[in-house]
Order: sequence, then C-alpha cells, then structure tokens
Amino acid sequence: MYNFEYQNPVKIIFGKGEIAKTGMNIPEGSKILLTYGGGSIFKNGVYDQVKASVKDFEVIEFGGIEPNPHYETLMKAVELVKKEQITFLLSVGGGSVLDGTKFIAAAALFTQGDPWLILSKQAKVESALPIGAVLTLPATGSEMNGNSVVTRVETTEKLSFASLLVMPHFSILDPEVIFSLPEKQVANGIVDAFVHVIEQYLTFPVNSPIQDRFAESILKTLVEEGPKVLANRTDYDAAANLMWSATMALNGLIGVGVPQDWATHMIGHELTAYHGIDHARTLAIVLPGIMHIERVQKKDKIMQLGKEVWGISVGTDDERIDQTIGKMIEFFESVGIPTKLPDYGVSTEFIDTVCKRFQQRGFKIGEKANIGPAEIRMILEDRL
Amino acid sequence: MYNFEYQNPVKIIFGKGEIAKTGMNIPEGSKILLTYGGGSIFKNGVYDQVKASVKDFEVIEFGGIEPNPHYETLMKAVELVKKEQITFLLSVGGGSVLDGTKFIAAAALFTQGDPWLILSKQAKVESALPIGAVLTLPATGSEMNGNSVVTRVETTEKLSFASLLVMPHFSILDPEVIFSLPEKQVANGIVDAFVHVIEQYLTFPVNSPIQDRFAESILKTLVEEGPKVLANRTDYDAAANLMWSATMALNGLIGVGVPQDWATHMIGHELTAYHGIDHARTLAIVLPGIMHIERVQKKDKIMQLGKEVWGISVGTDDERIDQTIGKMIEFFESVGIPTKLPDYGVSTEFIDTVCKRFQQRGFKIGEKANIGPAEIRMILEDRL
Repeated sequence: MYNFEYQNPVKIIFGKGEIAKTGMNIPEGSKILLTYGGGSIFKNGVYDQVKASVKDFEVIEFGGIEPNPHYETLMKAVELVKKEQITFLLSVGGGSVLDGTKFIAAAALFTQGDPWLILSKQAKVESALPIGAVLTLPATGSEMNGNSVVTRVETTEKLSFASLLVMPHFSILDPEVIFSLPEKQVANGIVDAFVHVIEQYLTFPVNSPIQDRFAESILKTLVEEGPKVLANRTDYDAAANLMWSATMALNGLIGVGVPQDWATHMIGHELTAYHGIDHARTLAIVLPGIMHIERVQKKDKIMQLGKEVWGISVGTDDERIDQTIGKMIEFFESVGIPTKLPDYGVSTEFIDTVCKRFQQRGFKIGEKANIGPAEIRMILEDRL
Repeated sequence: MYNFEYQNPVKIIFGKGEIAKTGMNIPEGSKILLTYGGGSIFKNGVYDQVKASVKDFEVIEFGGIEPNPHYETLMKAVELVKKEQITFLLSVGGGSVLDGTKFIAAAALFTQGDPWLILSKQAKVESALPIGAVLTLPATGSEMNGNSVVTRVETTEKLSFASLLVMPHFSILDPEVIFSLPEKQVANGIVDAFVHVIEQYLTFPVNSPIQDRFAESILKTLVEEGPKVLANRTDYDAAANLMWSATMALNGLIGVGVPQDWATHMIGHELTAYHGIDHARTLAIVLPGIMHIERVQKKDKIMQLGKEVWGISVGTDDERIDQTIGKMIEFFESVGIPTKLPDYGVSTEFIDTVCKRFQQRGFKIGEKANIGPAEIRMILEDRL
C-alpha cells in the first residue's frame, strides 16, 4: 500500500423523505442560488419538496445547466451570484448540475484573473461559496467529492478540477428520485459508477486487500442491483443500493494508497467533446479496448476482477482475461449500453483526431503513464 | 436499508514516515498538551519523531493515561489545560490515550456543571478543544470517530460518550509503530477490530449489500493479515493492512443504514470494570456466548458470516452456525486469546453480579433490545 492522505467531510443524508431536511442544513440567513438542469425536478416532485424545505430563505433560481455543463452557461450563473450577493449554492440535480455548481462556487470567489484558469491551468482554488446538494440521479459520485468536470463549447474542451473547498457541505440522497428516471439515465448511472471503481482498481496489485475488496463489493453490488432497478424502477431497496454504490464508487475511499488509471475517462471525454455521446457510454466503449491492449500490464487485476465478480477461475490466463472482458461487455449491453464505436455512428476519422490531440498535449496517460497516441489508436481501433 | 446520516471529517495521514507531518497539521501558534500513556512512545521512537515535528510550538506533556482511561486521571489533565490555557490536544498513543484525550477536550470546555455528566447523563457536548492524534496501536478505531470510553474507578463504572466535536482534526497512522508492539497488544487489536465489525454486521438482514460486503472485506482481511503480523512483526504490508482494517472497522461507514448490536461490548465492559481484563479479551469471551444464545435471531447473518469469511456452506443450519462459532473461537485462540471465563480466573459469582447490575439498569440490550438479565446469565454461563 502506498502512503496516502484522505479527508471527506461531506455530510450524507440518505433515505426516503430526507429532502425535507434541506433547509435545516443551510446556515440561517443564507441567500440561496438554487441551480438545476433541464427541468426534470419540476416533474418528479423534487423541486416542490426542496422549495417547501427552504421556504424561510431568500432563493433565486438558475436553471438550464446542461449535461456536461458548459463553461459559458456557468459563467452566467457566476455573474448572477455576484450581482445578487448569493451566500449559498443549492444544487438540485444530477452530477452535471453539481459539477457545474462546484465551478460556480470556485469561480465566484476567484481573484487571480479569468476563472477559466481553474480548469485550463489548474489554478489553485483559494475559497469557494458553500454548496449543498439534493441528488436526483445516482451516477457520478459528485455528491461526495471535490471533483468537477466542465466543457467549454467554444474550444471543444472537457476539463476538470478538484478541491476540498467545493465538496458539498451536505448531500441529500433520496433513492425515490430513481423511481421516475428514464431507463437510459439509470443505465448510464450503473455504468458510470462501475467504471469509476475500475479506474481505481484495475491497475496492478500493491497488496491492498481492503481497497480491493471494497472495490469488488461495489462492482458486485452494481452487477446485482443495477438490473433489478431497471426491471422494477420502484424497487426501493435496489434503488437505495444502487445509489449508495454510486456514491461509494467515487468518494475517494477505494482509491487511497493504490495506483489509479483514468485513461478510460481521458479518452472517453474526447468522445463526448466531439460527438456528444453520454459520458457513461463513452466509458463503456473505451474500457474494453484498454483491457485488451493493456492485458499484460493489467493481467493480475483483470484475472482478479473476473474471479471475484463473475467467478471466472478456469482456463489459461489469456482465456480468463478474454472471458472477463466478455462478461463485462455483456453486462454493459444487458443494461442497454452498446460498446462499439460504430454503434454510435463514430467513424475512423475520429480516431485520427483524438490521436492528434493527445500528440499535441504531449503527455501519456494510465497508471504507468505509458499510453500515448499509438496506444490510444490501438485501443480505439479495437472498438470498431 | 434504513435512512441514515453520515459525516466523518477526520483527515487521515497514512504511511511510513508520516509522523513528521504532525506539526504542519496543527494551527500556528497553538499551545499544545501532548497526552500519552505508559511511556512506550519513549522506547519506540514515536516521541522523538513527534517532538521534532512540533518543535516550533509550546508543548506541555501529560503522561500516565491508563488503558481504559480513568476519569480521575483525566480530570487532572483538565485542570492542567485550564491552568496553562492549552489550545490544542495532541494524543500520542493508542485508543485509550485518544479516548481519554477526547474526554479532556470536551470536559475542559464543559459549562453545565460536573463534566462527569457527559458520561453519566449523556450531557450534550457543545464545544471541545481541537484534537490531533498520532496512533501507536491499531485496535479501537478511535482515530477516525467521535467515540470515547472512560472508566470511573471510584464507582467501577465504564461509560461512553460520542460527539462529532471530539473527532480528531487529523490522525497520523504510521504502520511502522506495529514493529515494536508486544504480541499481546497486536492480538488484542486484531480481536478488537474484528468484534467492532461484528457488532455492526451480525444482526439481521436489511438488504444492504454494500455495508455487508464492506464488513466481510474487513473481517476477511483481519483473518488473513492478523496472523501475518503476529508471525513477522516487521512485515510492513501486513501491518499497514491491519492498521487500515482497524480504522475502517469503526469509523461509522459499515454501520450506516443497518441495525447494530453492541451487546458484546456492554457485557464485556463489566468484565473489564470488575476484573480488569483487557477490553478485546472480554469481547472474545462474550461474543461466542451471544452467538449461541441468539442463534435463532441472528441465524441468517451467522450463516452469511460463515460462508463469506470461512467458506462454510454445507450442513444443516444448526451445523453451519456451530461451525461458524467454532471457526471464530479457533481464530481468536490462534492469535493467543482465550475465550472462556475460567481462562481468566472468573467465577460464577461474577455472573450474579453482572446480572444484578443489568437488572438495576432496567434496560435491555442488543439489536432488538431483548437481552436482559436472564439472557445475559445464559450467555455468560455458556462461557464457563
């Protein structure tokens, strides 16, 4: 196990009916900006529950934060925050609304020039407005971490930043929000959480049984509970288990003291930036390619994954690796997520574009920083 | 899964050499009270590392905090804190030193009368001095929670309190501290952590696969890594895995949204209070008795424990339960911890005393609050 530091002060408020606790967790006298996305919160009752809970506060609303939130949109919210002297941000939505709200929180108090520097140059976040979150979608884990991913439409860039200061002060997770989610969003959430775990697990062994077993615990639970949610959206227990899995997948805990990969995300982001493919779907496309191409480097962990999650324990190493990749693809496709580039109408020209972009960036990715343009080409060609 | 709230802001600093980071995690200008126990920190080098790291601070020392820290001793520290206007408490020791330091932190700022009320009447802790911890012993999990257990010698009472306010601001966990621990302390730590998990796991199923699997992850790791540490005290990886297991066993995470028991602890505390038996050893005595007597109520979870941790999956339910209890006893005894009352020279008269005490208290214990004096008698008689 490597040395590590870990701190996660987010207060989790979990369970049915808990949205009613929103107001009591916000400092008295706060002037709130309530941020949201495309408006599903008006249909599923979440907006009404939140509004009832914060009725003693002054609340201004900012809607229309997109999936893969746009820098351009968020900067409008930053203007509003300054103009209205907002003191608390309340994110009511999924991971995109929350990621966007984290950027608003940091950008509103940024004093070192253009807030774009937070994303483009990883400028240090020195203060941020406090955030509370009411989650409407289990997927990204943003509710219990300090990470944020933002897209700049103008330059087709999807970049991220991280800071303890933008961790939500509280996050309310009511699994009943899942009852009204469309199938596609549930499926995306399952795969998103699954791949978050994989990025922190599927590298090389460093003798860290707690981290490994926790990761496998989440993967097994996603494989078991995800399909139950899809089959019966109002199965509360399955919804609760999916929601808690997604949070645990990316609150930092399973990643302490172990190598991490994140190449699937780095390559996937380009598929979203250029083709607008849902984030989770880009991961389902890229990950099998990475496992094929990195099968030597990742051998021990791929076999461990196969054994622990799908009981694959016979055959040669190569056979077991192939079976494991096959089982994973089968799982993604069973929840309705295709895993090949042509399934999304993406052509070979895109591969050239991506490789060129990584060439320009000049750094390699993956847990051993050995995946460059040539390897990315092989990974993407594997997915044709 | 039940509704729950969870928040744990403790900053964990984990790994070899990390004790050097003590000073940089304490607010500048703090006046520190360094608390410690019997003096092992002078022999294992921890004291020197800590002192080097806090050389820019004014530091006053308070040693001699006992295992099962005494209220009487801690109140002397409270006096010293007030007299010297201490602003930061630095606990350098195991769980007892840290539990004691938590009480000092709360008692020093207590304004509602005699600080004993915090323990005897669960008086609300409204403020506390900040605490930092350098852990010298993996066992109690106190380094990442707000719990404290204190013994009042005068009245033979062992009582506890809990507050977010006494959670350490940081805890430094350097697994190398294990290298010089006596066998008995390592064994106690393994069993203490094991039973902490059991108290949050071995109840009845509420469809909480993440919590169950995390609990089983810790149990399996303790069963595997504990004996490695005992066999080779300088096996860094094994020491690190044991240390992280003990922290994860009682930082609250595996206990969210599930029923909890704690009857083993409640009965075990009496064995410490009356006979001075090490805390962990009292748990190893009591737990098998609880499992025997509660075999119907706990049936599903005992069988799950047997299957997941020891691979027990054949035989009638009763046979599997007996095998599981047997395997657990075997594990405790394999690390050198006897599990019967006569092994510690405890007679049947003690059973009468304990039953009388629980009779006087008038409340029942366990996850269903159905263990009263009659059941406690059966549990303890099972351990003769």
